[in-house]
Amino acid sequence: MKKMTMADIAKVAGVSKTTVSRYFNGGYVKEETRQKIEKIVKEYDYEPNVLAANLKANKTHTVGIVCPTLTSYASSRMMMNIDQFLKKHHYATIIINTNHDELDEIKSITKLTQLRVDGIILLATSITMAHRDIASKSSVPIVFMAQAYDDGVSVINNDYEAGYKIGEYIYSNGHKNVVYAGVSRKDVAVGVIRRQGVYDGLQNVHPHFLETDFSAEKTIDKLNDYLKNHTCPTAIICATDTIAMGCMKVLKDHGLRIPEDVSVTGFGGYWTSTVMSPALTTIKFHYAHAGQTAGQIILDMIEEKEVERATLIDFTFIEGESVRSI
Amino acid sequence: MKKMTMADIAKVAGVSKTTVSRYFNGGYVKEETRQKIEKIVKEYDYEPNVLAANLKANKTHTVGIVCPTLTSYASSRMMMNIDQFLKKHHYATIIINTNHDELDEIKSITKLTQLRVDGIILLATSITMAHRDIASKSSVPIVFMAQAYDDGVSVINNDYEAGYKIGEYIYSNGHKNVVYAGVSRKDVAVGVIRRQGVYDGLQNVHPHFLETDFSAEKTIDKLNDYLKNHTCPTAIICATDTIAMGCMKVLKDHGLRIPEDVSVTGFGGYWTSTVMSPALTTIKFHYAHAGQTAGQIILDMIEEKEVERATLIDFTFIEGESVRSI
Repeated sequence: MKKMTMADIAKVAGVSKTTVSRYFNGGYVKEETRQKIEKIVKEYDYEPNVLAANLKANKTHTVGIVCPTLTSYASSRMMMNIDQFLKKHHYATIIINTNHDELDEIKSITKLTQLRVDGIILLATSITMAHRDIASKSSVPIVFMAQAYDDGVSVINNDYEAGYKIGEYIYSNGHKNVVYAGVSRKDVAVGVIRRQGVYDGLQNVHPHFLETDFSAEKTIDKLNDYLKNHTCPTAIICATDTIAMGCMKVLKDHGLRIPEDVSVTGFGGYWTSTVMSPALTTIKFHYAHAGQTAGQIILDMIEEKEVERATLIDFTFIEGESVRSI
Repeated sequence: MKKMTMADIAKVAGVSKTTVSRYFNGGYVKEETRQKIEKIVKEYDYEPNVLAANLKANKTHTVGIVCPTLTSYASSRMMMNIDQFLKKHHYATIIINTNHDELDEIKSITKLTQLRVDGIILLATSITMAHRDIASKSSVPIVFMAQAYDDGVSVINNDYEAGYKIGEYIYSNGHKNVVYAGVSRKDVAVGVIRRQGVYDGLQNVHPHFLETDFSAEKTIDKLNDYLKNHTCPTAIICATDTIAMGCMKVLKDHGLRIPEDVSVTGFGGYWTSTVMSPALTTIKFHYAHAGQTAGQIILDMIEEKEVERATLIDFTFIEGESVRSI
C-alpha cells in the first residue's frame, strides 16, 4: 500500500493541509475536525514523525504583536507586559501597528509569518471574515486579545460584568437622565458587550446613546453637538477614560461642575485619573495580568501544549469623586 | 594591472569595508574619511557599478524602529507619525521595544538587520560606545532620534531653547526658590541639554536639583522625601509632563494649591494637560513633524540621497494656569 501523506489525510478529511499540520502540531483545530482527522490517522495508521520534526525545527524565538494603535494606554500597557514576559522567557517581540485598519491587520499577520515568527498575538479591533480566514489557514499559532474569537484562542476583558457594575452604580445613585458615550458596534468587545453590560446594569433606565470613537477630540465635538439640542443629562457613562476626559473638558467649558451638575464615569483606570480633578470613577482592567496571560498562552501554543480557548481578564471598580447621589 | 576591489580600497584607506560600502551607497561617512576614499577611487580609477547594483537589489520595503518604551506619550506620537508617513510611501514598519535597556538597543539593531529591514530609526535614550560601534559597522542606514549623534544622522528636539524658554518664564515671574525635577545625565538630551537650557534661562536663580526618572511613581516618592527636609519651593520646573503630574499629585496631597502656593511647569504638551486642573504651563514639541522628518530622512538614506546630519525639531510654548507671578 502506498504511504499516506499529509495531503491525502487533508483530502480524505475534507480540510486544508494546514489544518492537518496544525492538528499534528497541537495548534487549535475544531473539535469536530479533530475527531475526523484522528479517525483517518488511526484508520490508515499514519506516522507523522518526520513532518512534526521538520515543523518543530527552525524556531526563531520571536513573537509578533499586531496592534491597532500605539497611543492607547490600554494597548501599550498590555504590550509592555507581553514584551517583558516574553523577554524573561528568552523570546524577542516585534510589533506592527495597523492604525485601526482591518486590512492592515490581515497584511501584518502575513508579514509576520514571512518574518518567520513562532507565534502571533493580535490586539484586534474586530473579527471579520478575513480574520477568520487567515487565522484558520495560519501555520503560526495566533492568540486574539481584547475580542472574543469563537473559532480560536482569545484573552478578553470581562467587559459585560465591568459594564454591568458601572451601570448598576449609576442606577443605584438615582440617575434617570443618562447618556452613554460609546463606540461603534464593529468593536464587539467595547461597542456591543461592554455597552450591553452598562444597559443591563441600568435596569429600567434607558440611556441616550452618543456614538463617538476612541479619541477625546471626536468626543468633544459630539458632546458639544448633543448639548445644543438636548437637556443636560445628570450622568454620562463613558466607554473609556479618554472619552471621559473629553466629556469633562466640554462640561467644564460649559461652566458645569463635576459631579454637582453632571456625574461622569470611565473605563480604563489610567493613572492620570488619580491626578485629574475630580478623580474619575472608573473600572481598571488588569492589563499586566492580561499581557502575562497572553504571553504564557502563546508560549504554550508554540510548545504545542493544551490551552484554554477563552480567558477572561478581571477588573477592579475604582470609586473616585466624579459621581454624586441624587 | 589587477582590478581594484572594495576590500583593497578599504585597506589602502585604513577603514572598514562597510565604510567603503556606505561611501558608495550615499550613507554617512566622516568628511575626512570621505576625502581619503575619494582620492583613492580617483587614483585607481575604481568602478563601483556592479557593487552598487548588488547592494541596491533585495529591498524589503521595511523600516525598523527601536524604541525605549511603549507607554511614553512622546515616543508613541513620534512612532505613529513615522509609521503613517512610511505607509504612505509604501513601506512597512516593525517596532522593537527595549524597556530602557541599552544592551537591548544594540541587540535590536542586530535583530532588525537579520530581519533584513532597509533602514532603522532608533529612539535613543543615550548614545554609548556600543551604539557608536554598531552604527559605524551597520550595513543598514540608521537615523538617531531624540539624542544627537555627532558621527551620524539625527533628528532632535530643540531641548536647549525649550529649556531656556521655561527657565526664563519662571525667572520673569519672580520665583527665587525653585526646584528642577529632572532625569539622569545619561540621557544627554533631557538630562543635560534641556536642564542646561532651564538653568541658563533662570539667570542668577540656582534651582535645587531633584533627580527622578520618567515615571510619575518615582517622582511622587522623590518629592515626598524632599518636602520632609526642605522648605517648600515656590516653583517646580519638571523635565516632562508626566513628572509634572506626579508633582501635582504630591502637592495636592499636601493640601497645597497650584499655582497659589506652588507653580508647576512641564515639557511635552500632552493633551491631558488641557483637561487637567489647573491647565499645565508646558512646552509642546512638534512630534508629528519629528516623525515625518525622521521618516523622510530614512527614505532618503535608503535611496542613497544626501541628508542633513542633524535636524532640530521646534516647539511651542503653552501658557496654562499653573504658574503665578510673585
